[in-house]
Amino acid sequence: MSDAAPPERPLYRQLADDIAALVRSGALRPGERLPSVRQTQASRGCSAATVFQAYHLLESRGLVRAAQRSGYFVAPSAPPPPVLPPREPQPVAVSEMVFQLLGTGEHDIHAPLGSAFPSATLLPLDALRRALAAGNRRLKPAELTQHLPGGHAELRRQIAVRYLRQGLSVSPDEIVLTDGALEGLNLSLQLLTRPGDAVLIESPGFYAALQALERLGLRAVEVPGDAAEGADLDAMAALIARHAPKACWLMTSFQNPLGSLMPPEKKRALVALLERHGVPLIEDDVYAELPHDGAPPLPAKAFSTRGEVLHAGSFAKTLAPGYRVGWVAAGRFAPALLRAKLSQSLSGSWPAQAAVAHYLAGGDYDRHLRALRRALAEQQRALRAAVLQHFPAGTRVTRPLGGYFVWVALPAGHDSLALHRAALAEGISLAPGPLFSASGEFGHCLRLNSGQPWTPALARAVARLGELIRSCQG
Amino acid sequence: MSDAAPPERPLYRQLADDIAALVRSGALRPGERLPSVRQTQASRGCSAATVFQAYHLLESRGLVRAAQRSGYFVAPSAPPPPVLPPREPQPVAVSEMVFQLLGTGEHDIHAPLGSAFPSATLLPLDALRRALAAGNRRLKPAELTQHLPGGHAELRRQIAVRYLRQGLSVSPDEIVLTDGALEGLNLSLQLLTRPGDAVLIESPGFYAALQALERLGLRAVEVPGDAAEGADLDAMAALIARHAPKACWLMTSFQNPLGSLMPPEKKRALVALLERHGVPLIEDDVYAELPHDGAPPLPAKAFSTRGEVLHAGSFAKTLAPGYRVGWVAAGRFAPALLRAKLSQSLSGSWPAQAAVAHYLAGGDYDRHLRALRRALAEQQRALRAAVLQHFPAGTRVTRPLGGYFVWVALPAGHDSLALHRAALAEGISLAPGPLFSASGEFGHCLRLNSGQPWTPALARAVARLGELIRSCQG
Repeated sequence: MSDAAPPERPLYRQLADDIAALVRSGALRPGERLPSVRQTQASRGCSAATVFQAYHLLESRGLVRAAQRSGYFVAPSAPPPPVLPPREPQPVAVSEMVFQLLGTGEHDIHAPLGSAFPSATLLPLDALRRALAAGNRRLKPAELTQHLPGGHAELRRQIAVRYLRQGLSVSPDEIVLTDGALEGLNLSLQLLTRPGDAVLIESPGFYAALQALERLGLRAVEVPGDAAEGADLDAMAALIARHAPKACWLMTSFQNPLGSLMPPEKKRALVALLERHGVPLIEDDVYAELPHDGAPPLPAKAFSTRGEVLHAGSFAKTLAPGYRVGWVAAGRFAPALLRAKLSQSLSGSWPAQAAVAHYLAGGDYDRHLRALRRALAEQQRALRAAVLQHFPAGTRVTRPLGGYFVWVALPAGHDSLALHRAALAEGISLAPGPLFSASGEFGHCLRLNSGQPWTPALARAVARLGELIRSCQG
Repeated sequence: MSDAAPPERPLYRQLADDIAALVRSGALRPGERLPSVRQTQASRGCSAATVFQAYHLLESRGLVRAAQRSGYFVAPSAPPPPVLPPREPQPVAVSEMVFQLLGTGEHDIHAPLGSAFPSATLLPLDALRRALAAGNRRLKPAELTQHLPGGHAELRRQIAVRYLRQGLSVSPDEIVLTDGALEGLNLSLQLLTRPGDAVLIESPGFYAALQALERLGLRAVEVPGDAAEGADLDAMAALIARHAPKACWLMTSFQNPLGSLMPPEKKRALVALLERHGVPLIEDDVYAELPHDGAPPLPAKAFSTRGEVLHAGSFAKTLAPGYRVGWVAAGRFAPALLRAKLSQSLSGSWPAQAAVAHYLAGGDYDRHLRALRRALAEQQRALRAAVLQHFPAGTRVTRPLGGYFVWVALPAGHDSLALHRAALAEGISLAPGPLFSASGEFGHCLRLNSGQPWTPALARAVARLGELIRSCQG
């Protein structure tokens, strides 16, 4: 039923897929050692880099484990076939659970592994505070009442320049500043839909998207996501044909919670598929600035020719949590989105916008980002190692190439909601899997935050989680 | 059809109503002099203050004019019977007009008589900027990510203290900080309704309420408003019985655009009527701090016994435009409203909330408000006098007891939309009457902003408007 042209697979993916097929068929058994990099290089006639890339991909899918100095092995328990969410659109009723699980705040939490933010200690709060004072020093009174609707013009210009450096041509007039990306995503969804409409989302996916669908009375059409490369486009094509969704809300880079990163050619195919069917893409891209290595990935918006991608970004995860400075580059929907913003909340908060604009103008943002990315990469390594050491055999952990989440699949039968309750009582938070699905899937999964500096206390918390998992199991 | 117990009328209102009846019946003719205060005092057996209060009320209704040193006269052209908006609920489609008329910003406007804000020159921007720096100096990193959901706790406490000084018991936990009152009003409306529902609003009324209804697919049930005392409760009772509205959105003090102020006993009757029918009241009270004389009026919420009044306030009109710091004291809906806020935009902007909290703690807010109120009263006198001098005979102008709007009714046949276009071309803005109605009424009316310091340039602008009115007339 798919009418999506299959994206051309790069070499490393072909290699990974071949090995995955061998594992699934049983030809390569759990615990068995994979061919060495040199052997594979020779047999496939490709570079060592390609082999490493393929093995990393398999590792991030949970199929393979690296053992220090001794190569790669098939994961101890071969993973079950991916959980395919139900294909019938679901009315959404997850909000209550999200608030119960996350609404307590983190006041009594010493190990915030369920947090949605990186640790504020990794952010340049002193420099930002200076920018807050300096950026608001020369404010003309009229600016506060006369120039509100468009938002801070210099900040919009600077965001446009950052797009340009990635090769995207985005006019400042296309950018609507919003109160965090979240408001922009909500307003975009409301703009594109009427109650009862179907909307494509990824599963597992960001719980705030589920809450937005619920508040607007929309039906969730869940597209299964791959931990390495994101939403399944063949499944998506079939679901579009069947349910005629009015919008698609996806995270294409370092997806929350899987951490998946759609390769560029897949992003291109995604946009082509959606534009062919007239389905606007709401691209939630708040982790794009956090690759652990190299430059930020191109967004799917880069491949749009019709202006039907609404690309949402934010400074909340990289610079200024609590300032609530986000934006949507809304393509041809920009005038309508600006009006929605004006009638919802008039404009963003000027002091925060002025502070971020002043900080960006100072030129330190990219240096800060490089340091932050290195810290996140290091913390992910430490957290993953601790999880693999302390959690039961058969546990799988994603290895995202950016962001600060890992997705943990416990062996079947474990219950992450029970674990959440037990952990919370000891001051350890986590995000249980059912938060991330409209259909209550992922009961054996959890999302952990690797955005906290790695400390002995955090190591003890992960070890304790391992004990709790065993005791919850009964 | 009314089942609202008629509120007991104070003496001054009985007197005013009696005189109004004489004018309407023709017993007192246009231009005729009213009995002197001393005569009336004697004939009614009441105090001089009561007579003055009654004459002021009649003046604010446009029925009577004061002439310096020579007493009160029936207004030159007796006002037409009040325009009663249609009683059938209206689907709303005013948004496009609002954006076209107001969306240009005010960049090229030298006389911003259409503005929705007081002049920023009347606000303590320097002190506020110092509060911005000081209030954000001692921020702990964790505050930015861990304490967001409830909003700034100290600011909520200070708002609760201000309620308490008015005699209202509002817990800080009942207060949800929002991005300006506007976001709070929108979220409240969305919380209480489903698309297609009927909602009571006042006519003429605030255009943002009309836009909110339009975006949410709601039907407007328009209740006629009196320029002195606000919404007509008898009409409201009949409309409730007929249309079963799911919410009522009103401004009860210094209403936009009429400037009306519901007397306390009428607010009590309003709440009793709504609570009897289970219709929650969204009380938009952003001008409450701006009485021209005396203390801020009690809100209708003061008379609520069931927690079904959602009272919205803001610092945007009195202290910090552009900061977007507002709130809703949401009564029994507070937990649901907090959740709506969390899923819409997570939280307000921390730096702005911290700045306002720090400014309030400094103790200068009330002194500032007293100075602002005096300025607004003086500016209103100057603007009204200029309008009455330069606009055509038969023009009526409200005389609100607070806020910074006057509502001008030109003699029948004049067209405020044509006037708006002609004035805009000369750098003069105004808010034409049709913005304030779902049914396109009020074509001969306009709202003028008296929140600008009175200058010779502004006087010339009003004189020029008078000329344009005559030339638009043709």
